[in-house]
Amino acid sequence: MRYELYYWPMIQGRGEFVRLALEEAGADYVDVARRKNGMAAMMKLMEQKRAKRPPFAPPILKAGKLIIAQTANILLYLGPRLDLSPRDEAGRLWVNQLQLTISDFVVEVHDTHHPISSALYYEEQRPAAKRNAAAFWEHRVPKFLGYFERLLENSGGNFLLGRKLTYVDLSMFQVVGGLHYAFPKRMQRFARRVPRVIALHDRVAQRPRIAAYLASRRRIPFNESGIFRYYKELDQ
Amino acid sequence: MRYELYYWPMIQGRGEFVRLALEEAGADYVDVARRKNGMAAMMKLMEQKRAKRPPFAPPILKAGKLIIAQTANILLYLGPRLDLSPRDEAGRLWVNQLQLTISDFVVEVHDTHHPISSALYYEEQRPAAKRNAAAFWEHRVPKFLGYFERLLENSGGNFLLGRKLTYVDLSMFQVVGGLHYAFPKRMQRFARRVPRVIALHDRVAQRPRIAAYLASRRRIPFNESGIFRYYKELDQ
Repeated sequence: MRYELYYWPMIQGRGEFVRLALEEAGADYVDVARRKNGMAAMMKLMEQKRAKRPPFAPPILKAGKLIIAQTANILLYLGPRLDLSPRDEAGRLWVNQLQLTISDFVVEVHDTHHPISSALYYEEQRPAAKRNAAAFWEHRVPKFLGYFERLLENSGGNFLLGRKLTYVDLSMFQVVGGLHYAFPKRMQRFARRVPRVIALHDRVAQRPRIAAYLASRRRIPFNESGIFRYYKELDQ
Repeated sequence: MRYELYYWPMIQGRGEFVRLALEEAGADYVDVARRKNGMAAMMKLMEQKRAKRPPFAPPILKAGKLIIAQTANILLYLGPRLDLSPRDEAGRLWVNQLQLTISDFVVEVHDTHHPISSALYYEEQRPAAKRNAAAFWEHRVPKFLGYFERLLENSGGNFLLGRKLTYVDLSMFQVVGGLHYAFPKRMQRFARRVPRVIALHDRVAQRPRIAAYLASRRRIPFNESGIFRYYKELDQ
């Protein structure tokens, strides 16, 4: 099966959580919108007026005749097929639950630089962004990363579910890398409080396929159009 | 199977999406935290230090030995068991995709009154809330409700998936009811642009079990601690 991923071509964004799963599994896939005329193909897919199951927004995965959107939903579908989630229902629900917790956190990360509206520029909401980012680091990061630290402490292995890597480990890698990029000072200070989370990030980065991907041109660099953006004044 | 739902007892919140599914199906369930000593039971469940699969936050569903969190994940589990989602995988993914789109929107609704931080009072973020709510109604409500309006137009039946009600119909009922409560003036003006969405809300409200639930004390009234809050100045 050749998968087709449709996502904004200039950013990692939410598409990156899907890319990491496809890359780790060595799956056969095309990052459609990054190809020549790819944006036109994506727009066509999104604007089919009478599509039976039209997506609300990218990322979108085409798998044969199936068209699936929403990051966590795509990963729920791919998990068993790429051997990146448990086989039993309870295990798959647990991985999905963790992925949805990550999704919630990703929204909060985005809100640190766009608390008023995504329709406005960052420069139009800087004072609000500064207050949001401060509260985010005071309350939310400790709660969220602390939760994942405890999961790793009790997992009985190197990964969130134990000895076997799943797609939530890849997503946590992305979150930690993103926080390092967007908030280098704050994150450096905070890192000592979540050593297992940091170790998970480093372990994922060293997996052969992930390392090859990160070194390739397929990996879009972090930038100030994505979810994780570096604005010096938000990093104190 | 007697289900146990654990959720904050004073608000509808995210727990309401689960309650509506259980009520529509006539399922045997206990709303644990609303019982005597119920909050203590919920806190105990959440603070089990060495739980194998600890939830990050309510709502939490206990189904036999399974403990499931994250609203969309709980509904994914309940859907086939309560006959509120399609039986085939593609259909279940589609319902889940729509539920996740609703989840995203619910976060945006909450951000209208708490754009800076949930750790601060509304009164500490009023100017930002005003700007957020204005952008929300200019950009997000038309996009989101317009999407669901088109789905209903093409569904070939009275419900989002066609002729059979699923749990996303119940969730849309809750969203529309919530917008009416939080933004009565804005919503009244907007309603004419999404007649099918409004009709879906009214149709769900009239289902015998939902009507009985809404009239019962089991339904917590909307209030200013929940997701949908009425603040006159945000309603223009």
